Amino acid sequence: MKARPHIKTHKLPLMARRQLEAGAIGITCQKIGEAEVMADAGIDDILISYNILGLDKLDRLAALARRCKLSVTCDNETVAQGLSDRFAHESEPLPVLIECDTGAARCGVQSPEEALALARRIHALPGLRLDGLMTYPPMSGSHEVDQWLARARDLLLAEGLPCPVISNGGTPNLGDLSEFHSATEHRAGTYIYNDRSLIAMGACGVEDCAARLHATVISRPAADRAIIDAGSKALTSDLLGLPDYGLIVEAPEARIVGLSEEHGHIDLTGSGWDPQVGDEITIIPNHVCVVSNLFDAVILRHPDGRLESIPVAARGKVR
Amino acid sequence: MKARPHIKTHKLPLMARRQLEAGAIGITCQKIGEAEVMADAGIDDILISYNILGLDKLDRLAALARRCKLSVTCDNETVAQGLSDRFAHESEPLPVLIECDTGAARCGVQSPEEALALARRIHALPGLRLDGLMTYPPMSGSHEVDQWLARARDLLLAEGLPCPVISNGGTPNLGDLSEFHSATEHRAGTYIYNDRSLIAMGACGVEDCAARLHATVISRPAADRAIIDAGSKALTSDLLGLPDYGLIVEAPEARIVGLSEEHGHIDLTGSGWDPQVGDEITIIPNHVCVVSNLFDAVILRHPDGRLESIPVAARGKVR
Repeated sequence: MKARPHIKTHKLPLMARRQLEAGAIGITCQKIGEAEVMADAGIDDILISYNILGLDKLDRLAALARRCKLSVTCDNETVAQGLSDRFAHESEPLPVLIECDTGAARCGVQSPEEALALARRIHALPGLRLDGLMTYPPMSGSHEVDQWLARARDLLLAEGLPCPVISNGGTPNLGDLSEFHSATEHRAGTYIYNDRSLIAMGACGVEDCAARLHATVISRPAADRAIIDAGSKALTSDLLGLPDYGLIVEAPEARIVGLSEEHGHIDLTGSGWDPQVGDEITIIPNHVCVVSNLFDAVILRHPDGRLESIPVAARGKVR
Repeated sequence: MKARPHIKTHKLPLMARRQLEAGAIGITCQKIGEAEVMADAGIDDILISYNILGLDKLDRLAALARRCKLSVTCDNETVAQGLSDRFAHESEPLPVLIECDTGAARCGVQSPEEALALARRIHALPGLRLDGLMTYPPMSGSHEVDQWLARARDLLLAEGLPCPVISNGGTPNLGDLSEFHSATEHRAGTYIYNDRSLIAMGACGVEDCAARLHATVISRPAADRAIIDAGSKALTSDLLGLPDYGLIVEAPEARIVGLSEEHGHIDLTGSGWDPQVGDEITIIPNHVCVVSNLFDAVILRHPDGRLESIPVAARGKVR
């Protein structure tokens, strides 16, 4: 299976290039703005795994397709028609993958039969090239996802429709890749940094978490309470099923029980830790993708210890 | 009572200037980086309502104090000592307010007696000027907050310590201002835009919510499900006690029941709304302060209908 990592987590051209150097066949983006930044940085094979709508976005998509190998996903006829109307005027057709809802209940056609119906439509539309299937799978049930995709693929092939690519995704199921016999590509994003939610799922350990947030204890108002200078504008309120807002590496038993915008509220009950005002701590966030999205820059630690600040170039690209 | 609005919500020099033109005596910031942006824009009376720690930040604070009227808050001796060590070298003392925990259980000295003890210390330290008290109050119990502050003030005054300023805060209690006999200033932030959490508290109506997020329906995978192109990287996961992730103005009975990073999951059960792919909708976010913090720009609608994009200049100022 080929790797097409999702850059939504890091949003860094540097990391995208490293992923390609390590063997990835291309990258995945979620927005045109992200893809534009990556193309500007010389990345030349990009899947935008999203339904793209609207004349302005379609013009940008067409401009992008002229300067890199670009593909998109689609789960409905309105989006397919819009893509076709725009790309019928281009010299090259746009490759389109049909997004399939294999159980995650987000976007996607609801059955292999619906996939077939949309495949027929896309195959018939000018300006488009049917390129296969894509899914964002549910957290469990890898075998069922594989069966779903295999059935849709077989329906397409039985009608002589092309299905060269079957794109699966997600970091949590990287350990399950052997279950996905039908998939030809995998889009993992969070694995680049890992985070506390992945530790909780058993997908990685603390030592595998590369992105850490540094905070300072700014107040010890009471014996059982410490306040740090990282709140919801640094950690976000994402819980992802976890009971509190981040893992304090230096004191895993202390709990970040609440967040104000610029304050983290630490409950020291049951912890032997006695932090002093001015102490610096390190936090592994629950969900690193949304945390990365808050910062204009990340600081890299090189193997020689040197620190380097680099801009999160694809952050803030709203459209 | 004087107004010293908190710019954490809008982070826009334009709005800060408007607030001053409307009668505010100054502004409040939560971080030096925000205050630097505001001072650059000509705002000349700034309270940073935060414990400032660390040599680098203290140097920046001293530089800032040379070019505007600056004050800070403090709730512990470590912070007071750090401020004094740095400002003893400056020509003007730094005004310091003692942060009081009047029930919100965040930062702050825990009792009026603790406020007195820290006031004595700050008054004795070189480079500092004791300027009074500050609190971020709990959501309810205005009378008790007022009593707390009045008692602390009286303890200070009885010892001949100065207490010219008593700074209270919060938008939810703007309707309660007459309860705060002791306060001389009020720091409200969210009121500049208002949001769904304030509607839920009865503090405002839908028509008072100035900040709206525009999203597009990108998928109708099932009869009871619509997907929009606004997820946790646009709305955040902040619930603030609400049952779901934002109010859809066009269909208040439809519920944004889940957020992926770039997808909002709308449950149409119980709603007569039948959105089509491509429909544009308007969302009032649960918590506008964290939403504003995600965007590099906001679009203003002028009275004549003209739209203007302006940068959220104080966004992304981490320190």
